[in-house]
Amino acid sequence: MGGDHGPSVVLPSLGRVVQRLAGKPVRFMLHGDQARLEAGLKHLGEVAGLCDIRHTTQVIAMDEKPAVALRRGKGSSMWNAIQAVKDGEAAAAVSAGNTGGLMAMSKLLLRMAAPGLDRPAIVASWPTVKGYTAVLDVGANVQSDAAQLVEFAIMGDAFHQAVHGSTRPSIGLLNVGSEEMKGHEEVREAQKLLREGGFDLHYHGFVEGDDIAKGTVDVVVTDGFTGNIALKTAEGTARFISMLMKDALTANLLAKAGALLAMGSLRAMRNRIDPSAINGGPLLGLNGIVVKSHGGADAKGFANAIKVAYDLAASDYAERIARNMAHLDKAIHTPAPAAPAEAV
Amino acid sequence: MGGDHGPSVVLPSLGRVVQRLAGKPVRFMLHGDQARLEAGLKHLGEVAGLCDIRHTTQVIAMDEKPAVALRRGKGSSMWNAIQAVKDGEAAAAVSAGNTGGLMAMSKLLLRMAAPGLDRPAIVASWPTVKGYTAVLDVGANVQSDAAQLVEFAIMGDAFHQAVHGSTRPSIGLLNVGSEEMKGHEEVREAQKLLREGGFDLHYHGFVEGDDIAKGTVDVVVTDGFTGNIALKTAEGTARFISMLMKDALTANLLAKAGALLAMGSLRAMRNRIDPSAINGGPLLGLNGIVVKSHGGADAKGFANAIKVAYDLAASDYAERIARNMAHLDKAIHTPAPAAPAEAV
Repeated sequence: MGGDHGPSVVLPSLGRVVQRLAGKPVRFMLHGDQARLEAGLKHLGEVAGLCDIRHTTQVIAMDEKPAVALRRGKGSSMWNAIQAVKDGEAAAAVSAGNTGGLMAMSKLLLRMAAPGLDRPAIVASWPTVKGYTAVLDVGANVQSDAAQLVEFAIMGDAFHQAVHGSTRPSIGLLNVGSEEMKGHEEVREAQKLLREGGFDLHYHGFVEGDDIAKGTVDVVVTDGFTGNIALKTAEGTARFISMLMKDALTANLLAKAGALLAMGSLRAMRNRIDPSAINGGPLLGLNGIVVKSHGGADAKGFANAIKVAYDLAASDYAERIARNMAHLDKAIHTPAPAAPAEAV
Repeated sequence: MGGDHGPSVVLPSLGRVVQRLAGKPVRFMLHGDQARLEAGLKHLGEVAGLCDIRHTTQVIAMDEKPAVALRRGKGSSMWNAIQAVKDGEAAAAVSAGNTGGLMAMSKLLLRMAAPGLDRPAIVASWPTVKGYTAVLDVGANVQSDAAQLVEFAIMGDAFHQAVHGSTRPSIGLLNVGSEEMKGHEEVREAQKLLREGGFDLHYHGFVEGDDIAKGTVDVVVTDGFTGNIALKTAEGTARFISMLMKDALTANLLAKAGALLAMGSLRAMRNRIDPSAINGGPLLGLNGIVVKSHGGADAKGFANAIKVAYDLAASDYAERIARNMAHLDKAIHTPAPAAPAEAV
């Protein structure tokens, strides 16, 4: 029921998912108003047969504060979707609803599996020269110590492998330079942990802001403050340049004629950075899979969010994370070797 | 003598500066090899009459470590240029040379005027929908407390007024949201200081990453870690989109024909984000004006760096900073009012 469009986007997305899965088995559990959902299912043909409806009339409004959403949330469509994951009835929950509410409820019902995190991390799939780079945290953890950064690396690795199909994703720590001594203590300590902690990870080293779009690594790790600002700065820059380009291609008759001729390949370019192709970010660090879709996503975008959830659930995503988390626990709790005794 | 091109870029830039200043008085003090500089001046016509040469054969190499540059730097062209500012012989120093060396020497010779800073801050002039936004620190201060952030605000205000001609620049603090409670302690404390410190500043509030390119405010303040990453992320994004666009406009014959027709206005668009139009960043927080040009700048770019130095020297930049710094000193050193006694 969530997002700017509710069932009018969610229902048409299901057919797209079935198509993209090309025969792989899937079933959908739809939480919301039974009458509305049943009316919508009539237009879905065979896909309707893959759906079970769990009726509730209670919904979380898009502008509800997280604390209020938590207090009044029990029994809402969002709550029930997460509860179904907890109860093992569903492999994953997908929502385009209120982000703060989804985070708070997911944390309450599923609990954090990453012990260093205050709240779930959010990963962005960033289009690059080479494909997609996963950048995290772009969300809520505004101050991250070294152990948190390593947790992001562990989850980013599993995410990139499950969703973008890499076999051994390379991981970079976002910093202001690539030399060993650059940056603040947290990133330097995280680099030390990633190098020496015995993880099953392909750690590359420090990367800089421009390495993201270059696709230098598959996973870029940073704190939620820097990650959020980097993501929004990039979005702002992309919009600004697109605006300049649109202005340039409509500036005069000659330019307009040129734009008309080039339209086919300009459109192909736009598809390469189409936001709906990368919609759907899992809330990372929970005991269970919850994927957040952008509130304004269309059916194509929402289908992508469901596909992300499917890929995570169908892969060894959770086990991969658990294995590396065990290494982290050991690396943090093993005392440093005693300094060698001085020669007498 | 510095930069990738030395006098072959610096000398031709002087005529451009004279032209841009349109009759305003200026003289140039050139530090470097006398024979080389004299040979170059022969091609400059009347501009040669505005130049004094200070001979030295010693130069700082572009790859010299700052500590080495400091130790061996005395008497080099870079050292002498800064010394001339200290001695009041020159109003400003401009260099395309080794950034670390320039920072270290400037700090040693001129000393910091901003007591909270470890080293000079660097400001970027960012092209936006509305003009130029000054973003700082994009440089070296990787961990910034609230007082440092306020110092950046004070210097960014004076910079934007002197160089971009605003009368009362609006100032935003970069954060992950605009609400009062967002972000970490340092930005929240800095906002409190900026609101209540009695500064002669137009403080707008928190801004987000996408507000930079929107031009929401004239000055965006952030720590050197986040600022550096935001700047490089934006550069990477701009390059990526330009690459996609170039690919699109050369993808096939039709697109190539279209690009040819639109070339005039595409070129005009590129000029709007031309790096040489914004080249030249002052090292902020020193007792004296030192402007760093990009090492690879061409004559147009280097001329812009000199123009930035001129604008700073010819304005009330230094006084404006000093006045607001006095407010900061007061705001920090005034004890908070005692908590009201509890009612009995």
